[in-house]
Amino acid sequence: MSELLKNHLGGRWTAGTGAGTALVDPVLGTELVRVDATGLDLRGGFAHARETGGAALRAMTYRERAAMLAAAAKVLQSKRDDYYAIATANSGTVKNDSAVDIDGGLYTLSTYARLGDSLGDRRVLLDGEAVRLGKEPLFQSQHLLVPTRGLALLINAFNFPSWGLWEKAAPALLSGVPVVVKPATATAWLTQRMVQDVVDAGVLPSGALSVVCGSSAGLMDALEPLDVVSFTGSADTAALIRSDAAVAQRSVRVNIEADSINSALLLPGEAPGSEAFELLVKEVAREMTQKSGQKCTAIRRVFVPEALYGSASEAIASRLARTTVGNPRNESVRMGALVSRAQLNAVREGLAQLRAQGETLHDGASHALVDADAAVACCVGPTLLGARNAAGSDASDRLHDTEVFGPVATLLPYRDTRHALQLIARGHGSLVASVYGSDAKALADAALGLAPLHGRVHVVSPDVATLHTGHGNVMPQSLHGGPGRAGGGEELGGLRALNFYHRRVAIQASTASLAHLA
Amino acid sequence: MSELLKNHLGGRWTAGTGAGTALVDPVLGTELVRVDATGLDLRGGFAHARETGGAALRAMTYRERAAMLAAAAKVLQSKRDDYYAIATANSGTVKNDSAVDIDGGLYTLSTYARLGDSLGDRRVLLDGEAVRLGKEPLFQSQHLLVPTRGLALLINAFNFPSWGLWEKAAPALLSGVPVVVKPATATAWLTQRMVQDVVDAGVLPSGALSVVCGSSAGLMDALEPLDVVSFTGSADTAALIRSDAAVAQRSVRVNIEADSINSALLLPGEAPGSEAFELLVKEVAREMTQKSGQKCTAIRRVFVPEALYGSASEAIASRLARTTVGNPRNESVRMGALVSRAQLNAVREGLAQLRAQGETLHDGASHALVDADAAVACCVGPTLLGARNAAGSDASDRLHDTEVFGPVATLLPYRDTRHALQLIARGHGSLVASVYGSDAKALADAALGLAPLHGRVHVVSPDVATLHTGHGNVMPQSLHGGPGRAGGGEELGGLRALNFYHRRVAIQASTASLAHLA
Repeated sequence: MSELLKNHLGGRWTAGTGAGTALVDPVLGTELVRVDATGLDLRGGFAHARETGGAALRAMTYRERAAMLAAAAKVLQSKRDDYYAIATANSGTVKNDSAVDIDGGLYTLSTYARLGDSLGDRRVLLDGEAVRLGKEPLFQSQHLLVPTRGLALLINAFNFPSWGLWEKAAPALLSGVPVVVKPATATAWLTQRMVQDVVDAGVLPSGALSVVCGSSAGLMDALEPLDVVSFTGSADTAALIRSDAAVAQRSVRVNIEADSINSALLLPGEAPGSEAFELLVKEVAREMTQKSGQKCTAIRRVFVPEALYGSASEAIASRLARTTVGNPRNESVRMGALVSRAQLNAVREGLAQLRAQGETLHDGASHALVDADAAVACCVGPTLLGARNAAGSDASDRLHDTEVFGPVATLLPYRDTRHALQLIARGHGSLVASVYGSDAKALADAALGLAPLHGRVHVVSPDVATLHTGHGNVMPQSLHGGPGRAGGGEELGGLRALNFYHRRVAIQASTASLAHLA
Repeated sequence: MSELLKNHLGGRWTAGTGAGTALVDPVLGTELVRVDATGLDLRGGFAHARETGGAALRAMTYRERAAMLAAAAKVLQSKRDDYYAIATANSGTVKNDSAVDIDGGLYTLSTYARLGDSLGDRRVLLDGEAVRLGKEPLFQSQHLLVPTRGLALLINAFNFPSWGLWEKAAPALLSGVPVVVKPATATAWLTQRMVQDVVDAGVLPSGALSVVCGSSAGLMDALEPLDVVSFTGSADTAALIRSDAAVAQRSVRVNIEADSINSALLLPGEAPGSEAFELLVKEVAREMTQKSGQKCTAIRRVFVPEALYGSASEAIASRLARTTVGNPRNESVRMGALVSRAQLNAVREGLAQLRAQGETLHDGASHALVDADAAVACCVGPTLLGARNAAGSDASDRLHDTEVFGPVATLLPYRDTRHALQLIARGHGSLVASVYGSDAKALADAALGLAPLHGRVHVVSPDVATLHTGHGNVMPQSLHGGPGRAGGGEELGGLRALNFYHRRVAIQASTASLAHLA
């Protein structure tokens, strides 16, 4: 049997008492390690996190906690090779895709170390200026942001075991809030290893960072009113978390980042082969294939003016055809595996549903696998579907609301910008939309039109062709989250991320008392 | 039969098709009016609010919407006498207590008119500065706040039919978000009348402000992903709302303001009869009796140093004994009725529970009713309970977690400040705590200690004896809400209130495109 990974809880490394669940190489089909959370003292471990970890973190200033994050980043930086090896084996990703997760996580952690340093030697944040509560200036209200006196439970998705950990843990720890991370089982290894490296390096106080691998049973029950929970994953699980007594009855604050049917929009007036057209084509092909399309932010729907349907279809299909698929250990391979057989089956089922409402413009089945056994490897080529005309875009319900979490997108023609916005709205709220064009005013107008339905709008124009950061790439400086179907949450956005881990309070007092607060 | 009040929905005044529920004078026991929401087309009405009301509001600038609020305030100001008459009859409140609701609502509405004007002639709010997304300054991220493209459903409590409406509707309307208010049935009349006056005056676009009186059945079902719901009331109903499919599955944003066991704390070192001591005594008596203790923010627990238990008990009881209780139409009466027989019964039951764990320091039953029939009027005198020593404070579970929503509070002795903070924490999060003392540094330290468990900390010192705005008085400049048991919500806080009605979005674009946003 493979190694049973330990959990870190209550300041100790503890193995579960069950047989464990095996983590599998999605390309080779071999068992890698096992995880198990049976028999853990969750309440005791959570209490240790709150009382020991929380107290130690809150005793530090923001600047000291920022230095702690920088030290953690340094530890992780020194072990990058280990992480790439784990990602290849457990996620089946090519090196460039592993980088999005691993180096993306490190970049985010380092960014919060830098941002946190700017907050200085304080333990409480002032929120705005004091305002008078009457005619006299002697009695005023000063708002503060204070670290919540609970822990942050992070329930994460399988597609970003590194980035998903650090994009949440960095703002939490910087805020002075201890973290318990529960990674998705399929890829828990990388998360567990990173926590282990940072904990063993002694750069964090005891109880500041815990990891529970395996079943999530009992985690929500152990939450108390001042805790927070941040979940990334399916809308169905999100609904269970929101309805849990911890949230519904004990007012545990919750942040949800669920799936969404993100859009790319080529504005009217751009000719086939124009710079904006080519930027769209390139970005769509990249988004479909990066991490085999297993990104919450990936482009799922591509909107082009009706007259450009044929040329866009050909241009995207032509790029996709050049994508080599297979074993990420082979250097000629550009796209590795899906994360598991369960995901492969889900993608096949989703594709079958979408095909019922669209034509196939490029068929992933046409890709022979490189260096991989199709009977074992969870690999699948990229597939582009389409609705032939604007009426088809209107008619195709599933294309607007079925997320296939793999290398799959749909090309949808539209009549005019108003029609495009109406179609995009049928996604019921998304994490991100990207817009492509060459007219700065038209791009800004489209961005404002898309804004109410998205957490992020990514605008690509020829002047930033080589500078833009990518539709699906989540930068720590920008908000990550979206309304409606996307879960309604807010993550990142620079220091805005700290709000979730703080409580806002108004202190109403004499000006003399307020002077002692800061 | 009494008049059946109409609902305003879909831009029309519509009577329910049922027999209706009677609203009753809680002092005289007479039927006043009836309300009914049977047979309303909620989905159609909500669609009108979103599509007609929302579009009209969003077409206006913040400054224009601020002017609209000012016009609404002017309409209401001209009809104040009507509102006082309704309050006397339907809420059974004396004039000063009606003012807290009516003039408090008008002040809040006017405050948002003034604050909104400062936002100027724009339709979208910039959220911070643009930040670079790379080394070059040509590609940047600019966060915006945009009005949500849904409606705001306000489900309100019976104790503030005016203030509860305007403290939520003002920020919503200023944000460009249409409002549907569902007042608590017992006191729906005042809310309905105010909406009627403002709607009939034509100062709002059609669909901007709707009112549904009676049952809340079907309201949550009619919500869509970009809607928001703001609820004030019991923790039990709050849990139902949070678990509703609208919130759990459709990601409707929710704000909860539930009950809480708010505290007043006299710091150590203040002698009996000292200024700080007297300020505490006066504020406790006022909070217990104002609106017959029917305020979410009222003081429920009073913490004093162990040695001061006797003197504080005598001083508070002595003030309470002077409170005349009865018919608010009699000018000698200082405290009117509870809002209904159901509330009177709930208060009696709650008192019986608390008495089992505390001694009675002043008995409300000792107050003879003025000008009111005890068999009919929902009047009850103020009762102060107590735990005789610090060990009693520790032992009395119910005194820390049972809210009696009437003129009832408990005096709790503590050993030292640390002990006091531990006891206060047993309220599991409250809307507000007040602190009394004369040392500015000690007051600030206590405020910081209380901050993580409260949405507001109110600090009273002799230098602001005549200036402070009151423990339970919610100023629009300060946050209203609190963690844990208090519901975890945030209302008011000046322009911070607008956040709930906006969606945050990051626009990533070339600097040239960003220039067209503002």
